[in-house]
Amino acid sequence: MKQIRILVTGGTFDKEYDELTGRLFFRDTHVEEMLRRGRARLDLAVETVMMIDSLEMDDRGRAAIVARCAEAREEAIVITHGTDTMVDTARALAGAAIARKTIVLTGAMVPYAFGSSDGLFNLGSALSFVQVLPAGVYVAMNGRHFSWNAVRKNRETGVFEPAGERH
Amino acid sequence: MKQIRILVTGGTFDKEYDELTGRLFFRDTHVEEMLRRGRARLDLAVETVMMIDSLEMDDRGRAAIVARCAEAREEAIVITHGTDTMVDTARALAGAAIARKTIVLTGAMVPYAFGSSDGLFNLGSALSFVQVLPAGVYVAMNGRHFSWNAVRKNRETGVFEPAGERH
Amino acid sequence: MKQIRILVTGGTFDKEYDELTGRLFFRDTHVEEMLRRGRARLDLAVETVMMIDSLEMDDRGRAAIVARCAEAREEAIVITHGTDTMVDTARALAGAAIARKTIVLTGAMVPYAFGSSDGLFNLGSALSFVQVLPAGVYVAMNGRHFSWNAVRKNRETGVFEPAGERH
Amino acid sequence: MKQIRILVTGGTFDKEYDELTGRLFFRDTHVEEMLRRGRARLDLAVETVMMIDSLEMDDRGRAAIVARCAEAREEAIVITHGTDTMVDTARALAGAAIARKTIVLTGAMVPYAFGSSDGLFNLGSALSFVQVLPAGVYVAMNGRHFSWNAVRKNRETGVFEPAGERH
Repeated sequence: MKQIRILVTGGTFDKEYDELTGRLFFRDTHVEEMLRRGRARLDLAVETVMMIDSLEMDDRGRAAIVARCAEAREEAIVITHGTDTMVDTARALAGAAIARKTIVLTGAMVPYAFGSSDGLFNLGSALSFVQVLPAGVYVAMNGRHFSWNAVRKNRETGVFEPAGERH
Repeated sequence: MKQIRILVTGGTFDKEYDELTGRLFFRDTHVEEMLRRGRARLDLAVETVMMIDSLEMDDRGRAAIVARCAEAREEAIVITHGTDTMVDTARALAGAAIARKTIVLTGAMVPYAFGSSDGLFNLGSALSFVQVLPAGVYVAMNGRHFSWNAVRKNRETGVFEPAGERH
Repeated sequence: MKQIRILVTGGTFDKEYDELTGRLFFRDTHVEEMLRRGRARLDLAVETVMMIDSLEMDDRGRAAIVARCAEAREEAIVITHGTDTMVDTARALAGAAIARKTIVLTGAMVPYAFGSSDGLFNLGSALSFVQVLPAGVYVAMNGRHFSWNAVRKNRETGVFEPAGERH
Repeated sequence: MKQIRILVTGGTFDKEYDELTGRLFFRDTHVEEMLRRGRARLDLAVETVMMIDSLEMDDRGRAAIVARCAEAREEAIVITHGTDTMVDTARALAGAAIARKTIVLTGAMVPYAFGSSDGLFNLGSALSFVQVLPAGVYVAMNGRHFSWNAVRKNRETGVFEPAGERH
């Protein structure tokens, strides 16, 4: 069975509701709980790299993610990431030319802790794609996978869609 | 985008609680609602073939599923199925030698309508595998995919695991 | 603040789904978790008397419940109970002539562990009624309270409704 | 059966997650859906007076609520309200000297649309208290009821607690 590393970076996926302030915030990741709910029986390592809103992701954060992907001994890596800048991080990973690894970024439009989240669907999807796609950097959202350079998030609909290849 | 057909056959996936009798029963499939929750943006046709407990699946039922797979114009097919006899139906599909189609069976250990169901995770997983695996018949459960002839359900743990190839 | 004792007897309230057998069963009560979710700040003692389907409640079981109500030092008691024989147990309690106590029976049409349960609503209702109703035996369901001798469960609709007084 | 009017004013109770902006917002009230979930069989009228965060409740808003309570033909009124200024609105209602009506304010610490909300518990509680408490203005939270002039929200714990009477 292929070894898979999940790198947690935060994003909507992991947001929670702070009942004292009425604001959304991060505590711990829900990925382990989601894997239990999905009855996942994979050879998995889960690692929290950071817990931030993807609007706050900067070059330094992206460099940390690239470094963790390069260092990881697994050849299959899933990254949970906020959707707003997911494509930017995918591009940074592609630019780092990490050889022989399949890297799949995924996220959620609604926090897992809330009703009606797409998070569990997306996690099942990303973990599946990462096992069978060839080496490369991909985004898995809306049940689809996209190569890092052929996708954009449509901010009006919240949907990931094909985009002309960028360089 | 690859066209996908989802064939619904019932199983734990779609069971509901009848509050008058206290028993589990089938009404309509939850697959459409699950696809909305997963924000799936795929080229999908959903078709209910039957709504039964997989312990009641017999040769006639399996023949109906085989027929629908053979007739479908899509080359990618996901079948939701009870877990107890999922492997038997997979074998029947493989025996029917349906050429050039990728067929993925999936199900759930807990009904989607209840808390803590693995159904959404499994649906995300099956829809992803069906887009990238080569033609053949597969079971997608526990985040993994298995060839039809290399899997069994461990009835003591509820987990799908590799099995010696059968013929 | 009035001291309240919650006597747990099982019923739909506390049923869970056994993912290996596909059957409903009892494990531990969910009452403590429900009280946390309701952010209840009451002077409460929770005691599990039994964990059974109310169709299995017999005279011996009812005698045990009556005994616990008589012995309890609290003057306010909520009993979680299956709905099918809730009215029978209410009558047994009334017949035991437990002086100066307010006893409220409640239950659920759908297990708390499943989606769409009425359990949390009913628990909030029963705990409120028990604080303000005079001594007596009551059923609290559907947002209403009924005296033990003026209620019946309509088995066709699942709704508790007024009934001519019985003696 | 006593006629009850539910006046909806917004508050955490009814907040939803906007998946495009990642912010919380109001759409329609969830009260009707909650009543269905609670299998409420009460003589109820539900009326949305406003849909605002209670931090935005001002004298004009409070005057609108007072007016609706005074005009309502029902003698039992439940008001759903944000928790931050619930006590202020209770005081305004008491000051308006609305004779012969039982008015109960309730709310939630977590939106109903999210997991783990106390909303359903609180709604069951408020609807029960309003049927049995004498005329007056009350707050129902945490499974308890408080007279309008003997309660405060502890902002550090999020819990409603007794307070010295104010005038």
